[in-house]
Amino acid sequence: MKKVVLGVDVGGTNTKLGLVDNAGNILAENSILTPANTSGVSAADYVKQLCEAAFVLQHQPSEAVEVIGVGIGAPNANYNKGTVEFAANLPWQHEVVPLTELVQAYFPNLPVKVTNDANAAAIGEKVYGGAKNMSDFVSITLGTGVGSGIVVGGKLVYGCDGFAGELGHIVMIPHGRSCGCGRAGCLETYTSATGLKQTAFEVMSHHYFSEKSLLKAISFNEITPKYIADAAQQGDKLALEVFEKTGEMLGLALANIVTFSSPEAIFLYGGLANSGDLLLTPTRRSMDKHMLKNYCKRNASGQIVQEANTQLLLSHLCNKNGAVLGAAALVWHEKI
Amino acid sequence: MKKVVLGVDVGGTNTKLGLVDNAGNILAENSILTPANTSGVSAADYVKQLCEAAFVLQHQPSEAVEVIGVGIGAPNANYNKGTVEFAANLPWQHEVVPLTELVQAYFPNLPVKVTNDANAAAIGEKVYGGAKNMSDFVSITLGTGVGSGIVVGGKLVYGCDGFAGELGHIVMIPHGRSCGCGRAGCLETYTSATGLKQTAFEVMSHHYFSEKSLLKAISFNEITPKYIADAAQQGDKLALEVFEKTGEMLGLALANIVTFSSPEAIFLYGGLANSGDLLLTPTRRSMDKHMLKNYCKRNASGQIVQEANTQLLLSHLCNKNGAVLGAAALVWHEKI
Repeated sequence: MKKVVLGVDVGGTNTKLGLVDNAGNILAENSILTPANTSGVSAADYVKQLCEAAFVLQHQPSEAVEVIGVGIGAPNANYNKGTVEFAANLPWQHEVVPLTELVQAYFPNLPVKVTNDANAAAIGEKVYGGAKNMSDFVSITLGTGVGSGIVVGGKLVYGCDGFAGELGHIVMIPHGRSCGCGRAGCLETYTSATGLKQTAFEVMSHHYFSEKSLLKAISFNEITPKYIADAAQQGDKLALEVFEKTGEMLGLALANIVTFSSPEAIFLYGGLANSGDLLLTPTRRSMDKHMLKNYCKRNASGQIVQEANTQLLLSHLCNKNGAVLGAAALVWHEKI
Repeated sequence: MKKVVLGVDVGGTNTKLGLVDNAGNILAENSILTPANTSGVSAADYVKQLCEAAFVLQHQPSEAVEVIGVGIGAPNANYNKGTVEFAANLPWQHEVVPLTELVQAYFPNLPVKVTNDANAAAIGEKVYGGAKNMSDFVSITLGTGVGSGIVVGGKLVYGCDGFAGELGHIVMIPHGRSCGCGRAGCLETYTSATGLKQTAFEVMSHHYFSEKSLLKAISFNEITPKYIADAAQQGDKLALEVFEKTGEMLGLALANIVTFSSPEAIFLYGGLANSGDLLLTPTRRSMDKHMLKNYCKRNASGQIVQEANTQLLLSHLCNKNGAVLGAAALVWHEKI
């Protein structure tokens, strides 16, 4: 029987599952909805649904498989303790959920490992993606929230408590937009899928007379990042301004992050990263503009030019479910 | 003959020299003025003066000593290349100074090592100070500028280019105070010795009628951090507000830094750290207030309280010239 690891990526909207072999092939995958943070669904009920989906999945591949372990990436997960703690975008924002323990009950004799969803994406990038040969890089996940996985000297940074790498909660604007974490002005309130929507409405609030726009034809509840991206692709000026402002903020944050660990590259991953150059171009422009000179390139005559040494890249796993791969790599590979 | 390392700390105002034995004792020390950044003094002339002071120093201890190496901490220094690059607070802000090479000419057969001055302070803290038993900590130097040394998993973070750890240049307020680095709103424009002076004048600009204050009796050119601290110690309300505002900004920055590496402790070092509780109390209050819940303590019943897990500490080397010790440790000890 083919040995596989069940990799799970708990996103704010969807939970993705995949059966991953040792070479990083996903033999089968499916997903369930992650309960909305206002749904009141208990963690136990969610885990039951998740594990039932996993049992169905095991019969999906054409060849017989043996699950040898479970790796899970989840927001606010603690690698050391196997818990998910106060996750702002999940229904358990005031709880410490013993996720490893709950899942272990369904897989009694197998290793179950949990890490931050964005750490999982970084591990995926290192093991199977664009960071195979890098010792220092940062992976930024732009989804319902903004997460991060930081690799320094070839190792994931876990910090003293297993919680390092929550760059979505760097305060960018003191007293800025209110954040699900209970504070204000966090990076994720500007550069997540949700932040993009908010910026769309901020931009509209500044342009009552001047511009026709597709954005003006849709409600706050109905608008999606894809709607804004489609409008921008059609040349909608307000939609383009939304990406410009989002990239400006993200680029400034990335320049700040470089002052910490001076990584070789920063990888963007997650739903919003799929908007490609729409986001990447203004982000790179802003990152270059805000970069401290120490971290800039030089021209042929040795003079500094305002262009970052740190490469800004799209994740090589954007179309491959990198967080599922990374979660599975938690079991397949030694801790990186 | 007693073997010693010459440790050098290049500050924005003073350059300190010390002869350090293997146990971390400073057998002799002196200092020279660091040339002002508008002075036009060449790097070669400065190094000549520095090395002459070092030769005088060698004859100062009562027992004969043999210098076996030179360790230097300097702003914007690159450990990998032995250079000081575009240092905003030195006269060579547009240059790459080959510091190792210049010093080597005076000590032809000895190892000469250079690192960032704040990295040197962190190394000193790890080898001789309060971080002896810590794997994850951050050292913040509050001097003419603001520097940082970051230790992750027991190793200093150098990044892909030797320049990691310039947290004084995290942008705290987009389009904020102009910084020597050519950008705006950097942490060091608010929480360095210079930033404290600027905040004194900002506070005065808000209180024309309401308060008498010692701050109003002195010019911008003449005011010093010590003058402001002395006024605050006497209960001067405006001076106390200056420390309150400085601590508010520093505490927010430290809360941001925790989202990166979740250190066990953050050590404050440098001239401004010597103001003790005047700065520490509002900084700790702000750090606790702004801390992401994941990084907060829990009470006896397991509920989160808004108090950081990360300890905020004064450097144990504040009175011992930690950056000189750390610079010497570059030669005495393996790279940490």
